[in-house]
Amino acid sequence: MASLLRTAGRARPAIARSIVRPTSRSTPIALQRHYASAAAASAVAPNNSTPALFPDEPSGPIIRTEIPGPKSKDAVERLGKVFDTRSLNMMANYNQSYGNYIADLDGNVLLDVYAQIASIPVGYNNPTLQLAATSPEMASAIINRPALGNFPQHDWADILETGILSVAPKGLNQVFTAQAGSDANELAYKAAFMYRRQQERGGANVEFSEAEMTSSLTNQSPGAPDLSILSFKKGFHGRLFGSLSTTRSKPIHKLDIPAFDWPVAPFPDLKYPLDQYAAENQAEEQHCLAETERLISEWHSPPAAVVVEPVQSEGGDNHASPAFFQGLRDITKKHNILFIVDEVQTGVGATGKFWAHDHWNLDTPPDMVTFSKKAQTAGYYFGDDALKPNKPYRQFNTWMGDPARAILFRAIIQEIERLDLVQNTAVTGAYLYDGLQRLSEQFPGEIQNLRGKGQGTFIAWDSPRRDEVLKKAKGVGINVGGSGERAVRLRPMLIFQQKHADLLLEGLDKIFKS
Amino acid sequence: MASLLRTAGRARPAIARSIVRPTSRSTPIALQRHYASAAAASAVAPNNSTPALFPDEPSGPIIRTEIPGPKSKDAVERLGKVFDTRSLNMMANYNQSYGNYIADLDGNVLLDVYAQIASIPVGYNNPTLQLAATSPEMASAIINRPALGNFPQHDWADILETGILSVAPKGLNQVFTAQAGSDANELAYKAAFMYRRQQERGGANVEFSEAEMTSSLTNQSPGAPDLSILSFKKGFHGRLFGSLSTTRSKPIHKLDIPAFDWPVAPFPDLKYPLDQYAAENQAEEQHCLAETERLISEWHSPPAAVVVEPVQSEGGDNHASPAFFQGLRDITKKHNILFIVDEVQTGVGATGKFWAHDHWNLDTPPDMVTFSKKAQTAGYYFGDDALKPNKPYRQFNTWMGDPARAILFRAIIQEIERLDLVQNTAVTGAYLYDGLQRLSEQFPGEIQNLRGKGQGTFIAWDSPRRDEVLKKAKGVGINVGGSGERAVRLRPMLIFQQKHADLLLEGLDKIFKS
Repeated sequence: MASLLRTAGRARPAIARSIVRPTSRSTPIALQRHYASAAAASAVAPNNSTPALFPDEPSGPIIRTEIPGPKSKDAVERLGKVFDTRSLNMMANYNQSYGNYIADLDGNVLLDVYAQIASIPVGYNNPTLQLAATSPEMASAIINRPALGNFPQHDWADILETGILSVAPKGLNQVFTAQAGSDANELAYKAAFMYRRQQERGGANVEFSEAEMTSSLTNQSPGAPDLSILSFKKGFHGRLFGSLSTTRSKPIHKLDIPAFDWPVAPFPDLKYPLDQYAAENQAEEQHCLAETERLISEWHSPPAAVVVEPVQSEGGDNHASPAFFQGLRDITKKHNILFIVDEVQTGVGATGKFWAHDHWNLDTPPDMVTFSKKAQTAGYYFGDDALKPNKPYRQFNTWMGDPARAILFRAIIQEIERLDLVQNTAVTGAYLYDGLQRLSEQFPGEIQNLRGKGQGTFIAWDSPRRDEVLKKAKGVGINVGGSGERAVRLRPMLIFQQKHADLLLEGLDKIFKS
Repeated sequence: MASLLRTAGRARPAIARSIVRPTSRSTPIALQRHYASAAAASAVAPNNSTPALFPDEPSGPIIRTEIPGPKSKDAVERLGKVFDTRSLNMMANYNQSYGNYIADLDGNVLLDVYAQIASIPVGYNNPTLQLAATSPEMASAIINRPALGNFPQHDWADILETGILSVAPKGLNQVFTAQAGSDANELAYKAAFMYRRQQERGGANVEFSEAEMTSSLTNQSPGAPDLSILSFKKGFHGRLFGSLSTTRSKPIHKLDIPAFDWPVAPFPDLKYPLDQYAAENQAEEQHCLAETERLISEWHSPPAAVVVEPVQSEGGDNHASPAFFQGLRDITKKHNILFIVDEVQTGVGATGKFWAHDHWNLDTPPDMVTFSKKAQTAGYYFGDDALKPNKPYRQFNTWMGDPARAILFRAIIQEIERLDLVQNTAVTGAYLYDGLQRLSEQFPGEIQNLRGKGQGTFIAWDSPRRDEVLKKAKGVGINVGGSGERAVRLRPMLIFQQKHADLLLEGLDKIFKS
């Protein structure tokens, strides 16, 4: 492994700025203590020369007990009495977690490349976020939560403009805020249905018919129209009833839940390494596009929109080329239906661009882009005013998002910009991919179909003993997750650096040798 | 009006405890200033002798300009460029809002009996909530948001037990947490469908068939079963695709959105005053129950559950008697389907009991009770372990609720208990209802079908010029909302006291005389 690391140690652009501990009086005492202890831990010399983004981070994982250890076992048993713990992976002590490291209750501290299912962007107990979280405006947002559609707070335009909208995808300049990925997608679907029916009706000024009004209340057409959203095999868009109808990841996500009879198109099943199978993969993508177009033309409930993830994440980290997505954009334009890009997992920097669809170089932007997870808030971006329903109270709910989380996302954006974290992720991702490439050559039975080259740290591979690898990773100090049936997926935070990549590669090497 | 108020001034149990300003160092400076200014405002003598729960509150509304005033108009115009403002009621300055009073940008301060669509429980800038919101554990919950199903925090059992679960409805002892009312209902529906199919399959140990696994991915039966949720005409259960399929409040909530072909039963259309129409109303409720039972037996997609609100809120504040709900419980038991009570708007004290269904004296508890709004978090309570799906990852999503909001609900619960606010609401509600009763006799054309007697402050009436009344209310210093086609609905906070009721009655008197 030592030689592997040495050969990997090429020169990289240095990331000069670093996270500075807050000195404000408002820092809670518990956190001040934590900083002090983290500083003591970091007295150990860093294991390489890259300037640290989180200087006070532990220098590596700390394993004190089996995982779960005795304290964790007791706590899980207690929690099990009031909360379903069958999907529990690890009980965490977030007071002791810092930067890329997650702590448990037994003193174990793991390098976290799963990051709360890809949803922690800039490190546990990030000091900049801590300042935002303890600000008077955050306190007010928490205790005076408004019904935003009716009684927005005086600075809501500011919060949107300096936060969520400041990172709007190219070509889009408006947002409808939501609470999580599932409802963000469903709100986008609703916007698509209202847009479609408005077109069919003859425009925004045409009133609803009596038949529409009446039938809407009994869930019948024309008021509740026979329209659909087209999604892709193995896609994941959430687990509420509308979003779940577009989710096709695994039976366990869908069994026993009624679903809309909506169309599902094949998603490209690419062969790796890509350069060896260029012709086959191109043919596969053409086949999927043709089948998508056929379904759009022939499905009994016409699609109002196509929804797609830039990388199918829960479904197994399935990639497609920019040409495929350009093709989807062309087909949706041709058939006058909307193109929704679900960036809930791919968005906010993880692929080495702020939005993963920035990799596609589309001629015209998606009609809507949905987001959540690392944004810590949610919603859909759009640009066309016609996507606003023709009357108020059509796209509406009590809270319509959450200023507290919008304020937090603004702080996250500022941190990403201050530390140039999208660039860091592109650079670290390339370094990590190279290391994994070498590991896959050394252990071809362990790392198969390595994918995510040029996609930041959004990297995955197939493993014939995936669940065993995930479990053994804890023993070598790494918290890592899976996706699909046999993929190991890496979802580190945006503060993941070369030294962390080295630790990950070392840990994998240990597992593969075991 | 003066005589009206005097005759209303009966002796009431005094609420002795009051909200004490926090003295902690962690109180933000902005808030300290606010307390100082609020204290100055309260130098004006209180307008009656009831001990004040919020001593520093303004002594009454302050109207400085037309509403919206010039500053609000400018701000709304600016917000309109990035956010849909067509449903905007009033832009608020929450820094200047306190207790029962909401402030705008022009120095106007209104008595708020709408409270963010019934979702603010214990007053704007409540000092106790302020302490919770500025605590280190809140900061950690905000910046280290866990994926609760996988990586719960070490104190999650504590937070549940001392918070959400400490107010679990009688007979229920478990909770699945969510983010808002819509998804709380949808998660309850999912639990109902999984429970039903598990029964049909022969129990928790029977594996899914290959046909179920395969068909689930194409949204076809048997994997995606032809089952339904039965709801009621004018019911409102949310606006996502599954919840919207059970919502039947108004066409504007449903138009153009595809919906499941699920059954809808009539909800009692009671005549007022109730004591004059006892026989007719009883017959009406029996008719609705019979029709519900017929639909359960005959609907093409069998219902897995019946969902009902204790008071249909968005649909126009429609009440039914405890006997009706007891009848629903009996019918669901008889047909072995689940009974879900949607307490999103009625829960957390507003009806003078913590849960509105406490008024019904059921023999057996509901199978699930959903909640949100005043709880500031959301979820469904249940008691039967069989309502947990047989395998992990079936009822699951990334965040599965939010510890930050669960911590806030715990503080809300503590505040409700400390100040005996459910009792306060029962007492104030009775006082207010009596006052409205007298007003309705004085202005029979203005207050029709007054309802909510014995239901705390959860009071409404029909108004032939409803929208005009709501608008004029702002001019007399009152922020009040409507529901359904012509109801004025009162949704004050739990800190609403006799003096506030007097101000409300005075204001209504002014409007009716105008």
